[in-house]
Amino acid sequence: MNRYLQPKKEDWDVLLKRPTATYAAIEPLVFEVFDRVQKEGDVAVNAYTQKFDKISTKVKAIAPTDILAAEANISEALKTAIKLAKENIVCFHKAQKTAPVKVETQPGVHCWQEKRPIEKVGLYIPGGSAPLFSTLLMLAIPAKLAGCREIVLCTPPDAAGKIPDVILYTASLCGVDQIFAVGGIQAIAAMTFGTETIPGVYKIFGPGNQFVTVAKQVATRYQVAIDMPAGPSELLIVADDSANPEFIASDLLSQAEHGPDSQVLLVSLSEGLMEKVQLAIDVQLQALPRKDIAAQALANSKMIYFSSDAEAITFINAYGPEHYIVCVKNEDKYLTQLVNAGSVFIGNYTPESAGDYASGTNHTLPTNGYSKQYSGVNLDSFLKAITFQKIDEKGIQKIGPAIELMAAAEGLEAHKNAVSLRLNSLKK
Amino acid sequence: MNRYLQPKKEDWDVLLKRPTATYAAIEPLVFEVFDRVQKEGDVAVNAYTQKFDKISTKVKAIAPTDILAAEANISEALKTAIKLAKENIVCFHKAQKTAPVKVETQPGVHCWQEKRPIEKVGLYIPGGSAPLFSTLLMLAIPAKLAGCREIVLCTPPDAAGKIPDVILYTASLCGVDQIFAVGGIQAIAAMTFGTETIPGVYKIFGPGNQFVTVAKQVATRYQVAIDMPAGPSELLIVADDSANPEFIASDLLSQAEHGPDSQVLLVSLSEGLMEKVQLAIDVQLQALPRKDIAAQALANSKMIYFSSDAEAITFINAYGPEHYIVCVKNEDKYLTQLVNAGSVFIGNYTPESAGDYASGTNHTLPTNGYSKQYSGVNLDSFLKAITFQKIDEKGIQKIGPAIELMAAAEGLEAHKNAVSLRLNSLKK
Repeated sequence: MNRYLQPKKEDWDVLLKRPTATYAAIEPLVFEVFDRVQKEGDVAVNAYTQKFDKISTKVKAIAPTDILAAEANISEALKTAIKLAKENIVCFHKAQKTAPVKVETQPGVHCWQEKRPIEKVGLYIPGGSAPLFSTLLMLAIPAKLAGCREIVLCTPPDAAGKIPDVILYTASLCGVDQIFAVGGIQAIAAMTFGTETIPGVYKIFGPGNQFVTVAKQVATRYQVAIDMPAGPSELLIVADDSANPEFIASDLLSQAEHGPDSQVLLVSLSEGLMEKVQLAIDVQLQALPRKDIAAQALANSKMIYFSSDAEAITFINAYGPEHYIVCVKNEDKYLTQLVNAGSVFIGNYTPESAGDYASGTNHTLPTNGYSKQYSGVNLDSFLKAITFQKIDEKGIQKIGPAIELMAAAEGLEAHKNAVSLRLNSLKK
Repeated sequence: MNRYLQPKKEDWDVLLKRPTATYAAIEPLVFEVFDRVQKEGDVAVNAYTQKFDKISTKVKAIAPTDILAAEANISEALKTAIKLAKENIVCFHKAQKTAPVKVETQPGVHCWQEKRPIEKVGLYIPGGSAPLFSTLLMLAIPAKLAGCREIVLCTPPDAAGKIPDVILYTASLCGVDQIFAVGGIQAIAAMTFGTETIPGVYKIFGPGNQFVTVAKQVATRYQVAIDMPAGPSELLIVADDSANPEFIASDLLSQAEHGPDSQVLLVSLSEGLMEKVQLAIDVQLQALPRKDIAAQALANSKMIYFSSDAEAITFINAYGPEHYIVCVKNEDKYLTQLVNAGSVFIGNYTPESAGDYASGTNHTLPTNGYSKQYSGVNLDSFLKAITFQKIDEKGIQKIGPAIELMAAAEGLEAHKNAVSLRLNSLKK
């Protein structure tokens, strides 16, 4: 990892910078696929699956018998692990339910806010080297808890045209309604417009490669919402001599193995710790199956020494990490002064892996500095708040004259008249 | 208004349709302005203010003396009205504050969620025929309550280069930090990138014309979030014979006066009521200063008769109105079965004007069917949720083995190792 000692504020820009991917080159292809899927539906989806995935299956909902067969292929140990994770994720997300907010703002003016589920949601789980069933847990569980009526899953087929057993098992366990072996741009387009087979949805969730990322951005032009903008995964650790350097090294490596563009930062209040962490990384790296990927990510990663908590905290808030591990003696200071982060892991026995899989928190989080304005996925991501008001005769008499004055000052006489008519009717 | 009696479901599409504006023609201009503002800052902002607004002022923050002078020009009656509205809006939005969510998902596994303010927010208030100080109340009050550190307001200068007094007064009353007489695309670009004078922000709120709408969409390409996509304002009323036809007419007209593209719908369970409402509209329209605008909107508006509540409710949910007035005997049925709407107004003494100005609810709401997946602006619009977790030795021993299994099943050995190292250290 690259080291920086007490960098001056005017030099922070380069340390805070994320890789800037420009997707302009991909957009014409995405627009082409969207256009054809909108016009031709399943025929286009099948054509693109053939073209991009080299598979000639026809899109159809996975049959319940296939799901049962998949279940039989999962070890009991893995099933038990997935169920424990599910239990914890349910527990934490259920606790996020909010009661209706009810207020009488003036006598006779009753206002309240209630949340209702987004009826139709689409979940996208990428394919690739390993089946990301943990991400499916993170999306399907809150969708189900929120009460979404129609939960659709699209995920790419493997070389045999199949969806991995563990994905089918997890989808069924979490109550996904329909599952399709369709991936890439065509999956996002299908959930945007709906086809003869794949239902259109109101909001699309989930990670993906650059094609899926651009496709989700394009989907927002067609009345569909998305969970959040995507970028490479990130981890920032702040640590002092109270931290265990081997644990810190293992956490940095678990971030680095995600991909060559993973963002890995260690902010340290101790030069000695930095030295020990580097040594531990060198040892642990050798044993990893994905060591080439991790080594590439580490080559671009940074260890930054600050002598004061104040500077470290300012730097961390300016970065706004997706994952943030706090391993320092005075952790309270770092937590109370935290403004921007996706998910925070505190102390020596709280690895990022815990939140990635099984502690109960969500792992779909804002990257790329988006923690400055976005929440990670949570129960509210699958709900929308509606406001209600009911005003009685007394209430409109109380606030009516103010409304008349304000509407007139905005030049909206019909708005004023809607109140005046009611007030006049009460004078009779 | 156009009338439809008991339309068949296969004919609903045309009734549910919104005007589809295509903004592709505007995008090149928006990209040009963004590009120049990013490179040249204030110089570009001033050049575009000269070009688009024909005003040669230089951008600078409004001085406190100007704000004091503005305050002196507002009538005490209007000030009192604005303060009453503020009191109610504060009351309703303060009630939306949520306590941290804390859960021990397993013994020793502590997870919690806390909300933190978005540090820098930008509010845009359009210019035009009247100063929309009510929208400023709706945006600045929750921003301040949320604890946003920097609240920036941009609004176009009038012909004399000034901001209307009532906007300055309201901004000051609500605690806006900096005010700039800059409008249009250049205002959105300035808040996106920041200039020498105008601070860059993390999220931009507020309505605007088609140029501002496209500029906000473009801003999302540059790490800025926006409140929601925009479209013409809408009102759907459902009414039966328990409704007062004059009141209904006045509400339809208050929506129609917004603009020729305003969406106005009356869903009625009574043909007789439709007749009476039309007569009342014909009378009331004549007295309105904006009757030409209202008449244009009414020419495209619809009265739809359904004989059953079930059909009416299905239709209303399929439309997902921004504003929804419910004036029926069995109102509970319509409220409990409601899925998609922005804000709901119940009963004969609850005009939309109440929520537009002073009842306490927010009037920045999802249009164009976006109530299917977006909330209106609320306190949470200015906050983001961060999750935290702290796991102790007992906790990691409880969930660690499940994490190891799941990480291995996803082929992420470094994730597994981060847990194994900790578990091994506890075996010693």
